[in-house]
Amino acid sequence: MSEKNYFSGDRQMNRSRIPAILALIFATCATSVAWAASPYAFPRVAVPADNPMTPAKIALGKQIYFDPRISLSGTVSCDTCHNVAGNGTDNLPLSFGVFGRVDVPRNTPTVFNAAFNTVQFWDGRAKSLEEQAKGPIQNPVEMGMPNGDAVVERLKQIPGYQKEFAQVFGGKDPITFDNVAAAIATFERTLVTPDSPYDQYMKGDKKALNASARAGMKLARSLGCEACHAGPMFDNPGTAMGTGAYQKFPAQPGYAACAKYVQQYHLTGDDGRFNVTHNPADKQLFKVPTWRNVALTAPYFNYGTVGNLPDAVRIMAACQLSTTLTDKDVNEIVAFLNSLTGKFPKETLPRLPETPNTTLLMGVPDLAQAAQKK
Amino acid sequence: MSEKNYFSGDRQMNRSRIPAILALIFATCATSVAWAASPYAFPRVAVPADNPMTPAKIALGKQIYFDPRISLSGTVSCDTCHNVAGNGTDNLPLSFGVFGRVDVPRNTPTVFNAAFNTVQFWDGRAKSLEEQAKGPIQNPVEMGMPNGDAVVERLKQIPGYQKEFAQVFGGKDPITFDNVAAAIATFERTLVTPDSPYDQYMKGDKKALNASARAGMKLARSLGCEACHAGPMFDNPGTAMGTGAYQKFPAQPGYAACAKYVQQYHLTGDDGRFNVTHNPADKQLFKVPTWRNVALTAPYFNYGTVGNLPDAVRIMAACQLSTTLTDKDVNEIVAFLNSLTGKFPKETLPRLPETPNTTLLMGVPDLAQAAQKK
Repeated sequence: MSEKNYFSGDRQMNRSRIPAILALIFATCATSVAWAASPYAFPRVAVPADNPMTPAKIALGKQIYFDPRISLSGTVSCDTCHNVAGNGTDNLPLSFGVFGRVDVPRNTPTVFNAAFNTVQFWDGRAKSLEEQAKGPIQNPVEMGMPNGDAVVERLKQIPGYQKEFAQVFGGKDPITFDNVAAAIATFERTLVTPDSPYDQYMKGDKKALNASARAGMKLARSLGCEACHAGPMFDNPGTAMGTGAYQKFPAQPGYAACAKYVQQYHLTGDDGRFNVTHNPADKQLFKVPTWRNVALTAPYFNYGTVGNLPDAVRIMAACQLSTTLTDKDVNEIVAFLNSLTGKFPKETLPRLPETPNTTLLMGVPDLAQAAQKK
Repeated sequence: MSEKNYFSGDRQMNRSRIPAILALIFATCATSVAWAASPYAFPRVAVPADNPMTPAKIALGKQIYFDPRISLSGTVSCDTCHNVAGNGTDNLPLSFGVFGRVDVPRNTPTVFNAAFNTVQFWDGRAKSLEEQAKGPIQNPVEMGMPNGDAVVERLKQIPGYQKEFAQVFGGKDPITFDNVAAAIATFERTLVTPDSPYDQYMKGDKKALNASARAGMKLARSLGCEACHAGPMFDNPGTAMGTGAYQKFPAQPGYAACAKYVQQYHLTGDDGRFNVTHNPADKQLFKVPTWRNVALTAPYFNYGTVGNLPDAVRIMAACQLSTTLTDKDVNEIVAFLNSLTGKFPKETLPRLPETPNTTLLMGVPDLAQAAQKK
């Protein structure tokens, strides 16, 4: 890929200059940044009017989220890659797909706080959790179901789901793919992690952050990191820059240290948002990932090629801000990022409804054999 | 395999006749069978003196049981195949192994009530839950770890486990493979399902079984099924026959209906216990599986080739007792077997301890590539 692609238009040029400009603004006018709103509170999840949350819908969504029968092999649930017992990811560079496929193209983002995302997926190709939930299930590389009807056909054979979908959604034909997605999204809206040390600090407990984390917060601010990692989730350049959820990465490939990282960690090769819009200006634009719980979601970046957070911080400084950080700088920023690890909800394990006296998965060995021949 | 193998000695001949003999005894002397002990109570799990149960050890064992990092790929936990949110199995004919391997040789038995087994695995190659737990982790076909040391090396890099193993086991070097197995086994001893309709019936609630289930219980008794499916777990021929945990399957391949099933469902080809002992008398001997929750653990038999319980009942009648059942007989026995579905424990989801700022799984893509080349 030629360098031309990185600066393919005026819009890109302007965008690449914004962080430095914002850094100046933030350095002189710190009270105006989003995280200084008063009185401070961890944000509330927005619930779509057409998919209200109820305890029964959350419980149903949790069952489906944990149910591997919504994958072709009967072995891959949402939870397989977005592990709720952990940090909402699988800590792999790239997840494995159905039948052990190794061609999942991008690193798995965490499900925790995904309810706050303005768009979903690295390339923003889904506008809501509901739309996102349908993606991996039908993706041949991920859960492998041929279509939503195949999912519905499986679930309709499970008496417990027949009953629960009727109770939650009502109507003549309550098990639909839309309702499957609505239930999963409803459960996911409960997966938020408030009350991090940073949140405690912002609420007034000044001891919640140690000196290193406070120095890291100040440094991140002065460098202009939050031009992109903006808003309460530190993920939304639209908050500060009005550019929506996306940012180019790497934005400064001409900076020598960045060029080295690009090669070492294979940071290019994925056209990002361009794959959705086919607009040349969107090449290598990615949804800005949240900083919340970033300490727990290694490895990093769209290919998951960077195994630890200090390296990720160095790369971001070089490739987004044309800056080379000292080890002290890096340690302080990492300390601040660690302060964004929140409290995870205590979850009960759902009980998956059964198919007494039979199984839905007798055909799986043949499907596995067919998959191997491909 | 020649018919000679099915009747390879006097011991086998005698054993194959025992069910019919016992059927006569039970028919005339029903009060003497194990399930009529008074006052009736669901059994208590035996706890080994050298591995006492404590709440902290149960909690640690649960974390490890749910932790996919104890597999080579970082994706296969004990729970992957022995799904605690379901029925302790995966309802597949044969489970998939690490990196999507399709050569797992036998159907996955349920973890629920495994604590009552006198031996573990279809071929009884482990004497305890502790010994069993070490098997799949190190099996190249299943979880793929090269040895116990590799597991210990992974867990030692997880700060939360360092702390918890020290609290639970004490000593200088608390993270050992023996302690990993001890913790998993301790959690598994909590996975029991008392209070089935059958248990309620035996405690005196005569309405807990409907007429069909009661007829099925009587029929199973008169056929002699519990010669092998003996004792409170309906899994231990040693209780009634003194022959230990094993029984030959199929025992009556010369019976025409059985011969048909053998071909249709590939019931032979696995030497069972012989693979462990290399004693010709042990050919095709298998651990008798429990009837507890059998309605939920389809598909059936060591290869998982039989997809529903009525067919499994027909096959057992033909291949073990040289009997062909009517549809009414089958329905009644299935109704009785359904009455053995117990109450599953309500579980909290564990929180897996994290590796802040890094991941243990950066090397997995290379391991996956190496596995594909083999």
